[in-house]
Amino acid sequence: MASAGDVTTRALIPGDAVGVAEVLVKEPMVIAGLGVARRVFHTVDGELLFEERAKDGERCDAGRVVGRVRGALRSILTGERTVLNFLQRLSGVATATSEAVRSLEGTGCRVLDTRKTTPGWRALEKEAVRAGGGFNHRYGLYDGVLIKDNHIEAVGSIAEAIRRARAGAHHLIKVEVEVEDLAGVEEALAAGADVLMLDNMDLPTMREAVTRIGGRAITEASGGLTREKLREVALTGVDYLSMGALTHSARSMDISLNVVPA
Amino acid sequence: MASAGDVTTRALIPGDAVGVAEVLVKEPMVIAGLGVARRVFHTVDGELLFEERAKDGERCDAGRVVGRVRGALRSILTGERTVLNFLQRLSGVATATSEAVRSLEGTGCRVLDTRKTTPGWRALEKEAVRAGGGFNHRYGLYDGVLIKDNHIEAVGSIAEAIRRARAGAHHLIKVEVEVEDLAGVEEALAAGADVLMLDNMDLPTMREAVTRIGGRAITEASGGLTREKLREVALTGVDYLSMGALTHSARSMDISLNVVPA
Amino acid sequence: MASAGDVTTRALIPGDAVGVAEVLVKEPMVIAGLGVARRVFHTVDGELLFEERAKDGERCDAGRVVGRVRGALRSILTGERTVLNFLQRLSGVATATSEAVRSLEGTGCRVLDTRKTTPGWRALEKEAVRAGGGFNHRYGLYDGVLIKDNHIEAVGSIAEAIRRARAGAHHLIKVEVEVEDLAGVEEALAAGADVLMLDNMDLPTMREAVTRIGGRAITEASGGLTREKLREVALTGVDYLSMGALTHSARSMDISLNVVPA
Amino acid sequence: MASAGDVTTRALIPGDAVGVAEVLVKEPMVIAGLGVARRVFHTVDGELLFEERAKDGERCDAGRVVGRVRGALRSILTGERTVLNFLQRLSGVATATSEAVRSLEGTGCRVLDTRKTTPGWRALEKEAVRAGGGFNHRYGLYDGVLIKDNHIEAVGSIAEAIRRARAGAHHLIKVEVEVEDLAGVEEALAAGADVLMLDNMDLPTMREAVTRIGGRAITEASGGLTREKLREVALTGVDYLSMGALTHSARSMDISLNVVPA
Amino acid sequence: MASAGDVTTRALIPGDAVGVAEVLVKEPMVIAGLGVARRVFHTVDGELLFEERAKDGERCDAGRVVGRVRGALRSILTGERTVLNFLQRLSGVATATSEAVRSLEGTGCRVLDTRKTTPGWRALEKEAVRAGGGFNHRYGLYDGVLIKDNHIEAVGSIAEAIRRARAGAHHLIKVEVEVEDLAGVEEALAAGADVLMLDNMDLPTMREAVTRIGGRAITEASGGLTREKLREVALTGVDYLSMGALTHSARSMDISLNVVPA
Amino acid sequence: MASAGDVTTRALIPGDAVGVAEVLVKEPMVIAGLGVARRVFHTVDGELLFEERAKDGERCDAGRVVGRVRGALRSILTGERTVLNFLQRLSGVATATSEAVRSLEGTGCRVLDTRKTTPGWRALEKEAVRAGGGFNHRYGLYDGVLIKDNHIEAVGSIAEAIRRARAGAHHLIKVEVEVEDLAGVEEALAAGADVLMLDNMDLPTMREAVTRIGGRAITEASGGLTREKLREVALTGVDYLSMGALTHSARSMDISLNVVPA
Repeated sequence: MASAGDVTTRALIPGDAVGVAEVLVKEPMVIAGLGVARRVFHTVDGELLFEERAKDGERCDAGRVVGRVRGALRSILTGERTVLNFLQRLSGVATATSEAVRSLEGTGCRVLDTRKTTPGWRALEKEAVRAGGGFNHRYGLYDGVLIKDNHIEAVGSIAEAIRRARAGAHHLIKVEVEVEDLAGVEEALAAGADVLMLDNMDLPTMREAVTRIGGRAITEASGGLTREKLREVALTGVDYLSMGALTHSARSMDISLNVVPA
Repeated sequence: MASAGDVTTRALIPGDAVGVAEVLVKEPMVIAGLGVARRVFHTVDGELLFEERAKDGERCDAGRVVGRVRGALRSILTGERTVLNFLQRLSGVATATSEAVRSLEGTGCRVLDTRKTTPGWRALEKEAVRAGGGFNHRYGLYDGVLIKDNHIEAVGSIAEAIRRARAGAHHLIKVEVEVEDLAGVEEALAAGADVLMLDNMDLPTMREAVTRIGGRAITEASGGLTREKLREVALTGVDYLSMGALTHSARSMDISLNVVPA
Repeated sequence: MASAGDVTTRALIPGDAVGVAEVLVKEPMVIAGLGVARRVFHTVDGELLFEERAKDGERCDAGRVVGRVRGALRSILTGERTVLNFLQRLSGVATATSEAVRSLEGTGCRVLDTRKTTPGWRALEKEAVRAGGGFNHRYGLYDGVLIKDNHIEAVGSIAEAIRRARAGAHHLIKVEVEVEDLAGVEEALAAGADVLMLDNMDLPTMREAVTRIGGRAITEASGGLTREKLREVALTGVDYLSMGALTHSARSMDISLNVVPA
Repeated sequence: MASAGDVTTRALIPGDAVGVAEVLVKEPMVIAGLGVARRVFHTVDGELLFEERAKDGERCDAGRVVGRVRGALRSILTGERTVLNFLQRLSGVATATSEAVRSLEGTGCRVLDTRKTTPGWRALEKEAVRAGGGFNHRYGLYDGVLIKDNHIEAVGSIAEAIRRARAGAHHLIKVEVEVEDLAGVEEALAAGADVLMLDNMDLPTMREAVTRIGGRAITEASGGLTREKLREVALTGVDYLSMGALTHSARSMDISLNVVPA
Repeated sequence: MASAGDVTTRALIPGDAVGVAEVLVKEPMVIAGLGVARRVFHTVDGELLFEERAKDGERCDAGRVVGRVRGALRSILTGERTVLNFLQRLSGVATATSEAVRSLEGTGCRVLDTRKTTPGWRALEKEAVRAGGGFNHRYGLYDGVLIKDNHIEAVGSIAEAIRRARAGAHHLIKVEVEVEDLAGVEEALAAGADVLMLDNMDLPTMREAVTRIGGRAITEASGGLTREKLREVALTGVDYLSMGALTHSARSMDISLNVVPA
Repeated sequence: MASAGDVTTRALIPGDAVGVAEVLVKEPMVIAGLGVARRVFHTVDGELLFEERAKDGERCDAGRVVGRVRGALRSILTGERTVLNFLQRLSGVATATSEAVRSLEGTGCRVLDTRKTTPGWRALEKEAVRAGGGFNHRYGLYDGVLIKDNHIEAVGSIAEAIRRARAGAHHLIKVEVEVEDLAGVEEALAAGADVLMLDNMDLPTMREAVTRIGGRAITEASGGLTREKLREVALTGVDYLSMGALTHSARSMDISLNVVPA
């Protein structure tokens, strides 16, 4: 494809200039995306050498150098912004996850991501969630049954929806269903759901739901889980909390790339 | 490509079931991405009819229905999450931009985006910035020269960097250079820069810079532009403010899709 | 891509000649792939009209016309062989499946496919298995855990393999494990496997295995299931039989395409 | 593309575990596809080392190790099934071809493949035919003229079809025509066909056809060539036998992959 | 892919402006590429209507309108240059071919193209050659054997090269060999070549070669065929002249696109 | 993709034959495309070693060897024609550019290319223009505003067109406008155009235009710039000459590839 490329760098930097640059963390964070950084630099120029100085999932303080790249200066400068765009977002996801996980310490409850990921980024964001200490929910529509409100609305009842899911999905897939009240819990249990998503329940209801389920199904709380409420919700005894905000609203972390003396 | 597809929907919903669903705004926002929503639904199923009930860039209150899709219920449910993932992020970008623009009302200063966009999303996010009333900076490395700190570091001086840029870029491209203090401003002006990016300057310095430039170059303020400071910075007389946060840290807006009676 | 295209047809048939051709079944079979036939003709020439005269999964006698295509004669002749190559193989898969299903009538046992599909054809072959009355196993490595001999060999024990699978797979995925004798059955049950693949067991052992499992796990027989043995194996009480031969060794059915008077 | 990948292997096998596995032939066969096996393993993981221990086209007994792969155990297990799916089918094609070739020993007649290949597999299957000692017919519609019944039907006569082919094809392409009886043979010869496909003729007719042609055209027998009839047909003196069954109905050979001590 | 698109047109022309433009021939030529023009406009905007006012291969005088496009003015202006770039080159090829063909009138000798086409353009340029009244040589390396000097050099002799070609190519492919003198002609004939390329021979030699061949092989003259020499070469009695210049050095014809009142 | 590949070479040359070939310049030229030659050979066979013996942009006499390739003889012969097709055209562009540049020596005027490039070849042809000593105009529609006759026709006036361009293009893009007479020059200057394209003006008018502009805008002459007129036009004082013929009508240079003793 015809393209003018990086006009600035091509005009300013000689083709044979070699340089070194460091990736610098500028606020406390859990770093993620260093493997992606390597692949981006490699895509720009297969000769660039990128050395990771931290591991994805590592907690880093401001001032920490997490990577170092050496090679054609033109290539380093051309790749700079894209590398940072990846690192900043993915570290944002890992850091947000890590904060959620820490607020649940000792409860035995696990943090899950959702399908509310950035289109095109699902694999990367799910990896960042794991780097932050969280667990992944299903990857897509193909590796788990999750019956949601619109499905139940269309089918007519929770029980019938579960029955159809059992008949249609293969024998290695479990069936999860979203329920909003105790009646839903009872109907889903009776129909043999494997996993119950307790959606937007208040704390007393959720506590009662967990009690009634009594281990007969896996439980997952979801809906409006702000960081303040996380621990309280976990203490109701649910097995998992799923949080869309981990991936759809994590803020970009402050990271920069600086050319340094070789 | 072999794929199990949407197991849940295929198991629950008959292939010939037809339905209607509405896209519902659940908090005040500037909507963006309705054209993308249409394309996503069309990619899932070329027979789906998506009717836009608002225009990108329109301010919407909670409760507003901004779109309506009709067709195979299976296709609607399969596309739901991806459509929402696009709409929620792009409306977040448009809303954040709109808030920035509003805070500058009457100053004559314009809001610009940056290259700090989500990899893969640049065209969409830049469109959302325009929907929110902002202006676009260059699209990529190929349609404008922007000399940044790492370039100056590598070349040795602002003046030499500008000289090389002039010689290397074609005659329809302007040359912008990042400066951090008044000495840099003077050097860049003397070297004939077309645009000066005043980076991370305090207000008195920026005011002085604008005065010295005196219209001989276009001015763009950047760096740490929190919403609170925006108006003050604009009042220094700069032509543009550029804000990475518009695209890298906008939060996801609350939007849902609901199956409704046809 | 430069290509000479269909030299014969271009030389012989005028570009504006219109024709009709019929797809004719020449031996008894369960037909499958008619939707693919339509897509192939449409890829060759978007103006061709293909009318299905049978439904995938329908049992057809010799002499049955299962489709009719009308349009540019050049396009019909150019697409002929590829259309037949698809139909003949997919109908072979559907017919083989149907024969297996019929031999199990009344036993309650279901026929499953495997991952022993033709590379590039998995989705099509799995659809043909369903057309023949069979059920699909997982689609790929991503939508189910299946621990096989090489895994156990590498991990050291069935129990440890199951433990790791539980920890690593998400909460909507079941864990299946291949076992070869009664000790393996006991170990897998104790470790909490959801599904047991009884691999290459003789009939008395399989019967005993089913008895010991007693409904605590789903059972799947596999390995060397020739058509003669199918019913006997099913009568041991297993839930599923999985057969690689359905997709890797089904023979091509006899189907032809004939130009007919319009 | 977001994908959960190989859940089982990722959960069970540490990322740094290294292993060796052997590809083992379990019944007598002519092996084919070892180069493909190498490419599949290399696609899964560019660091895997695959050593061929046999050559495509070599006759192997049960128990023969034909390849050995060393590298990340995860990658070996993830690639296993796909590698075997290729090897088993291609060796099936090579073995079937080899059997046909052997039954013609001493006759001077050659075995040809056809365009009845598996869509997507033509190049691979034609290579397997050569590995089995057969010859390839044209690759596609672009490198040879072959006038078949539907063409003749559309054009009106064999002679006119040949005339048009001569005028339309370039000067390096020969013209073959399908004939079904002696009248067709005479018409085709008179019109100057380069190659005659004697389709579905009984033995006496074919013998007479070969006599009348007397070397003025190349001869190819086709249609219903079961293995029993092959030699008899060859003894009529035809130059070639073409057999669709070599590629459309060859059965999958028994080959396995086993992890072995390194 | 993020791209700023057509900045000029987007800034100047309203999105809903509709217009008409004509494709105008500005010097005498044989037009070619009108179908490509349609496809380019359609790629830019599927709603544009392009009406061909001439047929590929038609001789047009200056002032002739050969096409008319109607639709979104933005799309017309965005596509203008690319459409013209195709038309101008392809009409150049057709016109050059037509001139060569005309200079051979009455000789019975045919004009051929070569593989000296513009990479990426072979199919288009070969179509333009036919539009100009020429014939196509083989399309690629796959649909004809052509033994050239480097091959002979590598193999050792013309005779051995032909022998290997016969053994290796399938039975529908003819064998052409490049010869440079009468000894080569004799050797090639003796070895049974189907086609002889008489390369860079002077006229007397070529005349003698044609005589000696006496119809036992097809003859093709090539090498340094300037327009002045064409007719003389044809009169030696060769069957074909092949000319690389038709595709590698045809000049661009003068064609423009003008917006006209609707 | 199924393809017969290079039938000739495969039949004639053993797979393990190794050879060397030289790329030989056969007339004086400025060579260009050696990097492309390397990439083509590498695409055909990743093991081929191509050594450049000249640099793009170097003036070469007839007889000069500009490259040498070593490796599998089959691969060298298969790649030969495509490599030459690239080199011959690109060297033609570089040579034509170089001739134009030389005819302007001492005038200070620069030679520019245009968008009249071969579709698919823009980046390569623009590189060849630079190799020949020319300068590049914008790469595409996205990195510069160029208002042409059809735009002005559609908008109504030069002044309004410039106004809209200023409002719509970002702040790093300059605005060029095509003018045909002195009135146009005045209107464009008054409206603040950055660059004026003086299109098809006679020499006295162009001289007067340059005088009136007096450095207030960059000037570019275009339209019917035959090589004879170039120097005269440059002497009017324009900054640039743009020439479509550099890319759309450069003739193919004579270059060959010869197998040599290793």
